[in-house]
Amino acid sequence: MALKKSPLAPLSFPVFPEVNGVRFATGHTGMKYKDRDDLLLVELSPGTTVAGVFTKNAMPGAPVDWGRKILPNGVARGLVVNAGIANVFTGSAGKTTVEETAKTAGKLLNANSNEIYIASTGVIGDPVPTEKITELLPELRENLSAGNGQKAAASILTTDTFAKGAVSSGKIQGKDVTITGFAKGSGMIAPDMATMLAFIFTDAAIPAPILQQLLLEINENSFNCVTVDSDTSTSDTVLLFATGAAENAPPVTADDEMLSDFIRALYDVMSDLAQQVARDGEGASKFITIKVTGATSDASAKKIALAIANSPLVKTAIAGEDANWGRVIMAVGKSGERADRDKMRLMIGGILIAQNGHRYPDYNEEQLTPHMKGREIVINVDVAVGDGSAFAWTCDLTHGYIDINADYRS
Amino acid sequence: MALKKSPLAPLSFPVFPEVNGVRFATGHTGMKYKDRDDLLLVELSPGTTVAGVFTKNAMPGAPVDWGRKILPNGVARGLVVNAGIANVFTGSAGKTTVEETAKTAGKLLNANSNEIYIASTGVIGDPVPTEKITELLPELRENLSAGNGQKAAASILTTDTFAKGAVSSGKIQGKDVTITGFAKGSGMIAPDMATMLAFIFTDAAIPAPILQQLLLEINENSFNCVTVDSDTSTSDTVLLFATGAAENAPPVTADDEMLSDFIRALYDVMSDLAQQVARDGEGASKFITIKVTGATSDASAKKIALAIANSPLVKTAIAGEDANWGRVIMAVGKSGERADRDKMRLMIGGILIAQNGHRYPDYNEEQLTPHMKGREIVINVDVAVGDGSAFAWTCDLTHGYIDINADYRS
Repeated sequence: MALKKSPLAPLSFPVFPEVNGVRFATGHTGMKYKDRDDLLLVELSPGTTVAGVFTKNAMPGAPVDWGRKILPNGVARGLVVNAGIANVFTGSAGKTTVEETAKTAGKLLNANSNEIYIASTGVIGDPVPTEKITELLPELRENLSAGNGQKAAASILTTDTFAKGAVSSGKIQGKDVTITGFAKGSGMIAPDMATMLAFIFTDAAIPAPILQQLLLEINENSFNCVTVDSDTSTSDTVLLFATGAAENAPPVTADDEMLSDFIRALYDVMSDLAQQVARDGEGASKFITIKVTGATSDASAKKIALAIANSPLVKTAIAGEDANWGRVIMAVGKSGERADRDKMRLMIGGILIAQNGHRYPDYNEEQLTPHMKGREIVINVDVAVGDGSAFAWTCDLTHGYIDINADYRS
Repeated sequence: MALKKSPLAPLSFPVFPEVNGVRFATGHTGMKYKDRDDLLLVELSPGTTVAGVFTKNAMPGAPVDWGRKILPNGVARGLVVNAGIANVFTGSAGKTTVEETAKTAGKLLNANSNEIYIASTGVIGDPVPTEKITELLPELRENLSAGNGQKAAASILTTDTFAKGAVSSGKIQGKDVTITGFAKGSGMIAPDMATMLAFIFTDAAIPAPILQQLLLEINENSFNCVTVDSDTSTSDTVLLFATGAAENAPPVTADDEMLSDFIRALYDVMSDLAQQVARDGEGASKFITIKVTGATSDASAKKIALAIANSPLVKTAIAGEDANWGRVIMAVGKSGERADRDKMRLMIGGILIAQNGHRYPDYNEEQLTPHMKGREIVINVDVAVGDGSAFAWTCDLTHGYIDINADYRS
């Protein structure tokens, strides 16, 4: 099924600068997709540090098992990603696929196999034809180029309707550092955690333990705020690679003041990619931002925001441009978190709809019509029991989601 | 929008016996629905005991607040239900509506207002025109009849496509007892708990505390096993009324052996109604039964079963008659409950698909095609970590759900 590009997509893929120490090559295995590249090889220069977060789904794919195993080493020399078959629930054969892929890529890049990260995305349960990957890697090795970022971003897609890239730059103690990243994800998207594949590259020099701490913290306010359909993938992986080519003085702790501009730039890239995933939610016609305040804690606010974001009734009402705000109230209540029904406050598109346990007397649904007809919906809820706040990004639930998922494999 | 009757509906409404001590009348307020009765009055004879379970949603409607308040008295003389506007998030006005309704019905039935139960279903947040209810009740009082059960069942519907009734009978120490019930519910259906309105009537004589215990236990394996869309309503209410007209010797404890046949009959009615709710899930084309075994506990098994039942990706695959079983594996993993990926076992329609961490070698998707094309889908999962078991009932997720919910209020 050919999918139409999401109406919520950015106007274009960003100009994607080269990151010193990172080279990409893509190729076509044909294991599922016929007319496009579906295999990615990334080469990372010696000395690259790495941080990662993986799905909390208890049925992880073999590549996630592998990533968890090698991450404590903190170093990375390569990454192989295939799209089409996910290598999940594939037993010992799946494990062998990963080991063979890492071994082959390691040899080609003069690295140890435990410095090679693997990611797979696609159908669960089908066996992966290992040779289609390993036999293509030598050709990819020949085609590595720092300028292939956009091709790389396109090669990892599945039901995505556009390639998702983001770039930013910053300074660490006067040295310029560049950050680029790309992501895929469209369905089976929900915290925790990463809910997608995302790969981020920087030339900053940052020790692995610090990189890991930064990734975890920013992930919580970026990829972990996105949900499309509440289904948590078995393959979710976010990896952050730092080549060190910028030769900045390395930080000693994650809260070192010298990192503040880098953290800002990294958040730019990660929040941009996370929002693009919701903007490409399967069948999406509206991008929805949900902000919750007044909860007992930030964690509680996040649960409420996600309960609203995951409610099929809220999402279908928005798809129908129907200001059926009572469903937002229902979703707050179903979250199981503390909220004061008789004091809470609800705004949509900046218009006050309900407070103190009932509809605001001056509320007039017609005021809200232009907002509901727009592409960007903003819901603010204050639950009036504390100071916790959080947000979530999602999309509406349309016929397109059903079309895509009722015959994904055909 | 006129809705087509669900293809999963029973062939007809059951022959609905009279229950001694219970009379029904229905009428038309016109507050939302134009061409059908939307108000129900039930009269219960003096001495009727009552049990109830209510939504766990933290934003309950005023009728739920009221029911919780009067339930400890254990006696009931009447019930008023309106369909169209839910009386939820209506502040002090909603509370007044409930009090006025109970007062009016109480006078008409020579009862105290705190013996009158109230239920409302429909749009959240709109104010309820109280007089439309209270002014119609005297006419309903005149039309009370024990034979109006089917009309009563029809009057409480909203987006339902058929009236849901169930009947059974049993014996308590040689005395015949009858049980009848009806329910509504089609969307905004999920544990906990009741996920709908259901009213059950019996002529058995059972003290209120024992009735409550029976209702709680059976509810856990009937209404609490149903989910349509994971959205927990703010109005969910199940009430069980026992008039005592059968004049059986009253039981002294809930586990009294004399109750075993009554419990069987009550389970028949409640599980029948619960399944009918899933069969009328908005847009449903397939009825899905999910059985989970081998979990660490029954509660854990229930969570896994509901994670599968609530997965939009599982439900859309079934809508598309696509045996995309990897999504079931994903849903087990996303439940957060313990499961052994490398030992678990999955069957659909009695056909073994996966075990020991990979696809069963002899599995052939074509074998499964006739089952996937049928109206009744059965999924069995053994997660291989213990002895806990549970089941869930749900339906598939189709274009019909979107059609209904994207413009429910228009």
